[in-house]
Amino acid sequence: MSGEQELGITESKAHNTGEWYTELIQKAEVADYAPMGGFIVTRPRGYAVWEAIRESLDDRFEDTGVRNAYFPMFVPESYLEREKEVVEGFDPEVAWVTHGGYDELDERLAVRPTSESIIAPYMAQWVRSHRDLPLRLNQWCSVCRWEATETKPFFRTKEFLWQEGHTAHRDRDGAWEETMLRLRQYEAVYEEVLALPALVGRKPEHDTFPGADTTTTVEALMPDGKSVQGATSHHLGRSFAEAFEITYTDAEERERTAHTTSWGFSWRAMGAMLMAHGDDQGLVLPPAVAPEQVVVVPIWSDDDREAVLDYAESVVDDLETADLRVEFDDRDERNPGFKFNEWELRGVPLRVEIGGNEVADGTVTLVHRPDGETVEVDRDDLAETAVEHLDAVHRKLYDAARQHLEENVRDADSPEEMLGTIGKHGGYVRAAWCGDEACETVIKDEIAAEVVMLPMEDDEDYEPVAETCAVCDEPSEETAYFAKTY
Amino acid sequence: MSGEQELGITESKAHNTGEWYTELIQKAEVADYAPMGGFIVTRPRGYAVWEAIRESLDDRFEDTGVRNAYFPMFVPESYLEREKEVVEGFDPEVAWVTHGGYDELDERLAVRPTSESIIAPYMAQWVRSHRDLPLRLNQWCSVCRWEATETKPFFRTKEFLWQEGHTAHRDRDGAWEETMLRLRQYEAVYEEVLALPALVGRKPEHDTFPGADTTTTVEALMPDGKSVQGATSHHLGRSFAEAFEITYTDAEERERTAHTTSWGFSWRAMGAMLMAHGDDQGLVLPPAVAPEQVVVVPIWSDDDREAVLDYAESVVDDLETADLRVEFDDRDERNPGFKFNEWELRGVPLRVEIGGNEVADGTVTLVHRPDGETVEVDRDDLAETAVEHLDAVHRKLYDAARQHLEENVRDADSPEEMLGTIGKHGGYVRAAWCGDEACETVIKDEIAAEVVMLPMEDDEDYEPVAETCAVCDEPSEETAYFAKTY
Repeated sequence: MSGEQELGITESKAHNTGEWYTELIQKAEVADYAPMGGFIVTRPRGYAVWEAIRESLDDRFEDTGVRNAYFPMFVPESYLEREKEVVEGFDPEVAWVTHGGYDELDERLAVRPTSESIIAPYMAQWVRSHRDLPLRLNQWCSVCRWEATETKPFFRTKEFLWQEGHTAHRDRDGAWEETMLRLRQYEAVYEEVLALPALVGRKPEHDTFPGADTTTTVEALMPDGKSVQGATSHHLGRSFAEAFEITYTDAEERERTAHTTSWGFSWRAMGAMLMAHGDDQGLVLPPAVAPEQVVVVPIWSDDDREAVLDYAESVVDDLETADLRVEFDDRDERNPGFKFNEWELRGVPLRVEIGGNEVADGTVTLVHRPDGETVEVDRDDLAETAVEHLDAVHRKLYDAARQHLEENVRDADSPEEMLGTIGKHGGYVRAAWCGDEACETVIKDEIAAEVVMLPMEDDEDYEPVAETCAVCDEPSEETAYFAKTY
Repeated sequence: MSGEQELGITESKAHNTGEWYTELIQKAEVADYAPMGGFIVTRPRGYAVWEAIRESLDDRFEDTGVRNAYFPMFVPESYLEREKEVVEGFDPEVAWVTHGGYDELDERLAVRPTSESIIAPYMAQWVRSHRDLPLRLNQWCSVCRWEATETKPFFRTKEFLWQEGHTAHRDRDGAWEETMLRLRQYEAVYEEVLALPALVGRKPEHDTFPGADTTTTVEALMPDGKSVQGATSHHLGRSFAEAFEITYTDAEERERTAHTTSWGFSWRAMGAMLMAHGDDQGLVLPPAVAPEQVVVVPIWSDDDREAVLDYAESVVDDLETADLRVEFDDRDERNPGFKFNEWELRGVPLRVEIGGNEVADGTVTLVHRPDGETVEVDRDDLAETAVEHLDAVHRKLYDAARQHLEENVRDADSPEEMLGTIGKHGGYVRAAWCGDEACETVIKDEIAAEVVMLPMEDDEDYEPVAETCAVCDEPSEETAYFAKTY
């Protein structure tokens, strides 16, 4: 670092969201571009956030009967072909391994784009009787999809980190409950961990995962008005179980075919969180994922150096004892202003400032990262107070995102209104939709917006928006959310 | 599972270690073979053990300044070539990605066999001043080496899971301290987590990691008398730093070249643990890694069913409250004998049996997995007692392995004696060695045993075994441990 000039973000989030985001990611040491297009290097500050998300999901999975496993990173071409035969529309662009050492392989190996076709045959082996069901497997791994688009860290990368869950059940209800359980866990992680409200719903039929009966999705609204899909949960029905012969004998010794699901949460969700909360000063991290939740910055003069540092150190001890992740920035060679800027860039949710006044008064000064709100509090019950303020920071982030979302769902009932609304404001347009892909195409061709999700009809607050399709005027079966997407 | 016949291990560990091991791994649901030779599927019971090891290493790393990151799974061919130019002898056999989607790539990508050549250029970017040092990065990932050998789960697989640490330091001493710190952490995990005593030392010069000044190793003795290397820590000197220009300005503003290290611990160490402790009844897991540490098996008759189950349930509650990983096997459809066999196969370290007598006496019966030692203890302070007995099980495993190791280090002072000793007993032969590879070759050509490690001369209990080489009689510089290896 050669100076403050270089340190700060120069792009504006409001005016240039895309450039601001990529500058943010690099300047805040979250990620760098790899030498190969489509790949990134996730730096410790970024990876720590991913680890926190992973841990939170893993705890939820473990509490609900999921067990982690690890399957090979390669899938033989014949396995993918088998999936192609059973699953119409399945033709993933993958990275192909053709040589091992100095020899050409007899059969090409795909670097896994997802693992249904390598996991399903093992599920078929491991499931014998109804007592073996449900079978719930999950793996955390990297996958590779050879899509030729511009790289955007975490949003669009050829290799990405994710978890993929794969389960088998006795019947349709069991599989559907599983699909929804995982969707709701994803939603909970968005809200409780990422401080992001999400829209949850179904994908339209033509956009379901190949082979799935139903694909459900978690969508988040980005500051530039586009929607990002960070997690999906698929009800696969019996298509994979039939193709890969995942069968079991029921209690009456009859042979039955299982029903399966798969569900995945990728680092796109992390990208969405970083983009949603960050600002022109840098990252803004929800306390649940921040590598440092609190930074303590002592501000001393020549006269009170020792007193301030001693006092600050005891504050740090208290916060650490309360199991908070605390950084004590007592660097001699940097002034407080520099430190403030640096920790703001890094997104630390809560700053504790301690100077001579605080020492004299037995207080500390707290500063909230998102809005700079500053409050002087008693030093004595600081650990408890800090937890409350971290909660407050989480709520501020969530509420701001919630408000942004609510302000950006607009109804429309004609193609012109839909196009005009998305063109002018971005965000979601909610419209009645007959379910015909052709009516989506009308919008898509004009403005690259598509149906990102259909609310679940069994949601409490579900209400059809109109009775005829906003595009073709035929009777409407669905309410659809249209948006531009990442 | 169609019956007890299929469940049990049929091979003998003593007579047929190799076949016994592969049967054990599959029957105990640790791993299965993948469709592609060289690859395996790690099942939940195996993966849970790996996760426990990972967590234990990660805690140690975190406490000593390491931060996790994630680098791309592919390395461009030109990057590997660059490493080849600077590192004599570096020519790894790798899996090559040649096509992405339907197109041939301009440059082939190697699936990472290790990541020095993709990580070092980023270290060069991130290190500017002496204040950025030491820089300590680690990643948990899978790597792929295209070695054409017979697959042996965890011991020999083309893809394997590991962690790779990469660090940069101001000077040689800093890098050497790091190398030894990681070696000692690996040794501690072997002893405290895997219940395996290990030999630690240096690799001979001709067997160091390409580019390294010194390679240090952790070696464990297997029941069939072979040595397995499950972790290595490399002092890389300045070779990588010079090649990749990892330089920094020191406090006097002078440009200096950093010193680097790398260190890795792979799932081989897990395989070594499984092979060392398992027996003809199945797995025997050290309590630190066992997915279930205690299994509670109620044994009821028609008369006391409810009383036994209630009592057993309260025991389970107590054990869970004490943070033990407990399984309550109250299945109706299986008799106690079947359950005992099944949990023995799975390696659960401690079994709690509860029948009418225990209920009447206010006791429980504890059975140690390794040797069947059975003891009746008071129910009241069971949680504490159980922890003590788990510690005892760990000690039993460690002591047995320690004794096996001590009995299998033998001195020899002529080629004939070395060959005869290894041929007859396996294990390690300790001999004075001049350091010349030719003298190792004499032994290697005859009996496929090699120098697996040289004790560190600064070890407290280091003592040269003789003053002239056991093979050529020239003055000896080293004491070497010869053994057959995995």
